[in-house]
Amino acid sequence: MTAPQRILVVGSVALDSIRTPYGQVDDALGGSASYFSFSASHFAPVSVVAVVGEDFPTAHRARFETRGVDLAGLETARGRTFRWRGEYLAELGHAHTLETQLNVFAEFHPKLGDAHRRTPFVFLANIDPELQLEVLDQIRRPELTLSDTMNYWIARKPDRVFEVLRRVDIALLNEEEARALAGETHLARAAERLLEQGANAVIIKKGEHGALFQSREERFITPAYPVTALVDPTGAGDSFAGGFIGMLARCGRTDGGALRQAMACGTALASLAIESFSPERLLETSTDEIEGRVRALHSMVHFDLFPMF
Amino acid sequence: MTAPQRILVVGSVALDSIRTPYGQVDDALGGSASYFSFSASHFAPVSVVAVVGEDFPTAHRARFETRGVDLAGLETARGRTFRWRGEYLAELGHAHTLETQLNVFAEFHPKLGDAHRRTPFVFLANIDPELQLEVLDQIRRPELTLSDTMNYWIARKPDRVFEVLRRVDIALLNEEEARALAGETHLARAAERLLEQGANAVIIKKGEHGALFQSREERFITPAYPVTALVDPTGAGDSFAGGFIGMLARCGRTDGGALRQAMACGTALASLAIESFSPERLLETSTDEIEGRVRALHSMVHFDLFPMF
Repeated sequence: MTAPQRILVVGSVALDSIRTPYGQVDDALGGSASYFSFSASHFAPVSVVAVVGEDFPTAHRARFETRGVDLAGLETARGRTFRWRGEYLAELGHAHTLETQLNVFAEFHPKLGDAHRRTPFVFLANIDPELQLEVLDQIRRPELTLSDTMNYWIARKPDRVFEVLRRVDIALLNEEEARALAGETHLARAAERLLEQGANAVIIKKGEHGALFQSREERFITPAYPVTALVDPTGAGDSFAGGFIGMLARCGRTDGGALRQAMACGTALASLAIESFSPERLLETSTDEIEGRVRALHSMVHFDLFPMF
Repeated sequence: MTAPQRILVVGSVALDSIRTPYGQVDDALGGSASYFSFSASHFAPVSVVAVVGEDFPTAHRARFETRGVDLAGLETARGRTFRWRGEYLAELGHAHTLETQLNVFAEFHPKLGDAHRRTPFVFLANIDPELQLEVLDQIRRPELTLSDTMNYWIARKPDRVFEVLRRVDIALLNEEEARALAGETHLARAAERLLEQGANAVIIKKGEHGALFQSREERFITPAYPVTALVDPTGAGDSFAGGFIGMLARCGRTDGGALRQAMACGTALASLAIESFSPERLLETSTDEIEGRVRALHSMVHFDLFPMF
């Protein structure tokens, strides 16, 4: 096994106030880059490029350090940290955003140092597609780039979202985003449409129904790991991304076999993320627990083909 | 390979008038027993117990005969055949029932002949749970019994639905039915609740998201086969049941390995059913095409576990 390769994530570090039927938290550590890097850090070293305000608690910063995450690219800007307040109702499927304060994030432009530009595995978390393109302009010959987005950008800057989609190796979308961007309600057709429009590969996240990988060569489906202790769905997608790219960076492979197991790793990390508020479970989990969930998923989907006719 | 064993289905044979965004049909052959038996007949011999009216077209009857389906138990009663009229809107997820005429079905009581009572594999399609219990009282030492139901009966006769659930080997439900019957929105928990309440095993059908098998010993998930030529979702569940029990009857096995491949067979047949109005595709498909879809599903979910940590 070669040494795990480094992963760069450009995204948000935020303070989240969240209410679900199972409880609530205020100003808890959140943001796409947090969920992503805690997940990925179980597989490979991670560098974060993001911005926080002067009010960002030292205790939150320490959590990245316990996971060995490189914070050289975490800028501290004058002002307050990005804040999000949301609520999940009984179904837990959709977050209802109650308040978004961009704060220091409003002026954020990711500036990559020389080492960051050469990081082989890159995750462009959900930020303005213009910023994602700025990052793509700065990085040099990466092994694999993965992007995320959200309906907000699809509605406002669809052309830029498509430009990102065409430039990255794999684009991550949830089912509503895939439908909106493809203009097609049926998911299998939506995935094909996105490839026709220039995406190299897409992963469509379907929440409790799992995820679908599709490229011109491969189609692969992973069910969700059946969590019964669901507490807070926030960060499931970014945790998926962290487990997915984490596995690829760990084994230094991007072939079909690796992508398939990486989908299972993403699924395992997403299932852990939603069992607590904030990324707590991602911090306290172990490689044994992660491997146990990947094995369980394998056994849930596996079947032996024996002759039928 | 031993000879395929016989399957008995007790359900409806109907005349369906359906409109979807892709077209419409009037008085087309429909009903749970039709979709089921055309699907299952690719695997094993099938006997139907159902009722039609004097107006049931000879051409429809001939279709069962081309598939070698035993119609000795298809009663012709005085009056008109059961009719259903429904519509699917753009999303195609839910049928909107415009009209149901029970007609001869209103007075139907399944009477099983001696041969039918000894059929080893039995499917109790969606009919009044009182009738399903009447059938269970008549059959003798079956290898495997599978039941279906619908929200209509869960709302009106939940105790009877539970009684059926406890007496059959496997209960088939769609996700809304599982949630309603378990009183639990989260599907993994709903499946566990149904087992706690006495079900031996459940299969929860999730439409385009596939199906989940759960018993005390096994949990198995199959994604849907990604159909892009979706025309009419009617009959998908019954076609799933036909492929599922068909495979088991064909190989004469009910162990975990067989159940897993049977889920894939059910999924393949459901995907064929929805590519045309009425059970047309089920009639014209071939064992090669079915096997091709089962292999494709296998390749979509399969991943090799290689060491991660």
